[in-house]
Amino acid sequence: MDNFDSLYSRYLDEFNDFLQSRTDIKKFEGRDSDGFYSVMEAITYSLANGGKRIRPVIALEFCRLCSGDHTDALDFALAIEMIHTYSLIHDDLPCMDDDDLRRGKPSNHIVYGYANALLAGDGLQALAFETIARSELSDDKKTAAITLLADAAGPCGMVAGQAMDLDNENKYIGLDDLKATDSLKTGKLITASALMGCIAGSADREKFLAAETYSKNIGLAFQIVDDILDVTGDESKLGKPVGSDEISGKSTYVTLLGIDEAKRLAKELTTEAVRALTVFGDDAWFLEELASKLLYRES
Amino acid sequence: MDNFDSLYSRYLDEFNDFLQSRTDIKKFEGRDSDGFYSVMEAITYSLANGGKRIRPVIALEFCRLCSGDHTDALDFALAIEMIHTYSLIHDDLPCMDDDDLRRGKPSNHIVYGYANALLAGDGLQALAFETIARSELSDDKKTAAITLLADAAGPCGMVAGQAMDLDNENKYIGLDDLKATDSLKTGKLITASALMGCIAGSADREKFLAAETYSKNIGLAFQIVDDILDVTGDESKLGKPVGSDEISGKSTYVTLLGIDEAKRLAKELTTEAVRALTVFGDDAWFLEELASKLLYRES
Repeated sequence: MDNFDSLYSRYLDEFNDFLQSRTDIKKFEGRDSDGFYSVMEAITYSLANGGKRIRPVIALEFCRLCSGDHTDALDFALAIEMIHTYSLIHDDLPCMDDDDLRRGKPSNHIVYGYANALLAGDGLQALAFETIARSELSDDKKTAAITLLADAAGPCGMVAGQAMDLDNENKYIGLDDLKATDSLKTGKLITASALMGCIAGSADREKFLAAETYSKNIGLAFQIVDDILDVTGDESKLGKPVGSDEISGKSTYVTLLGIDEAKRLAKELTTEAVRALTVFGDDAWFLEELASKLLYRES
Repeated sequence: MDNFDSLYSRYLDEFNDFLQSRTDIKKFEGRDSDGFYSVMEAITYSLANGGKRIRPVIALEFCRLCSGDHTDALDFALAIEMIHTYSLIHDDLPCMDDDDLRRGKPSNHIVYGYANALLAGDGLQALAFETIARSELSDDKKTAAITLLADAAGPCGMVAGQAMDLDNENKYIGLDDLKATDSLKTGKLITASALMGCIAGSADREKFLAAETYSKNIGLAFQIVDDILDVTGDESKLGKPVGSDEISGKSTYVTLLGIDEAKRLAKELTTEAVRALTVFGDDAWFLEELASKLLYRES
């Protein structure tokens, strides 16, 4: 019988193996070129520097909850991680956040240069949709997943959130605007992860709605905890300096609500998320624990 | 009975109307946000500054040739033009070609700034795949079209060609390398246009192969004529200065082959393209004339 940590690391290992196999340059024989190798080197550099792979794990687990087999969602999970990774590469560029480090390693453009990092991100986005289109699921599932992912990534989702983030710089933002920005910038892709897992697992409408409620709530709680950790966190555990939000002078859940109220809100959202899991019965223990781990995380 | 010019302008008008309707911000009600409006303004600026819309016209005409109805390919044609437009926005960025002008108007980043132009390109790529996924064609056609388009746009296609182009700067490139770069950078998207038209029109294998041969040959001929016009063209007709290739010192079909041999090669490729159309019978007159117009164009 799995416990949380053993199941999480099993998902993580399986996902990382799958990622490596699907992006193995040998698989592209006949479609390769000098340009292919140069772009793929930059792409795999950033894909390999993965974090907790929370989005893929959510997709795999929702698929397992619905159909009993998480492996059906591997291609969808990979596509989601590719979109997430491309957004980090572009976010780190000098014209955006201008970050030299990503998860303790030099950012893509520091290693490969500005133009190649731009192309790596562009190529990765195309590869995400190709990964879904070439998967072995049925065409209607693939089309539904592509619609969801493109909506979450494009001008109605992530890209809109990034534009709002740029616009928010150096000005006072109220709580509603901050929530709206976060729900687009990071929330929609987390929700897409849950829903794409449901698509792979042939979920019914009730389960879809539950997955949506769960993922929206943990997505927002995740952002709030991020802001709290930026004030109260331990630099050695976080692997990045604390207090960066204060230096950049941006509005956060902590500056708007204070630490205690921010903590209370994150807890409330987590409770709301867990409540939505009722429809899955006892089998939802992993997602329950995931919500709580994300709330009480130290990094 | 249509002649070439009347059919071309009918396609052009219909495509531009369709583009405007599909990107009308009112259509996104319920999915809009401040960020959405800012990204869509930059996106529609570049989409509206269209050129000859050659790719959409090729897609529509191959669909008509196969099924008698070109309108089935409108969504595919739009998706292709979105990919083409996003690549132009990113190509013009300071870290790439650093071009302030595109078709006589200020480039996207000159109007909206570097970061917003980056996001407009990113959003446009997502929108391209969403456009196909939401179209009314069957799921198997949509999946096939997305596979083709993502392959043509990603690390096995356009992005690889752009990376090779960056790598080719200021060094001597042989004819084979130049052809390889062009076939990835621009050729594969032109071929995808023809093949996606065939998918929309339910073409058989013989027609697919003919469309592939036609489009590969006119794609390469197009690049060669571009290089010739950069030497012999009339600036007032081209709408851009001639001689830019010589100034940038890059290898072109003209520097490698000389004007006469370059002209001969473009003509030979055009003949090859037209020969492939035999399978479509007399009905292929439009594509025949298109190949010849592209060969003898003055801009």
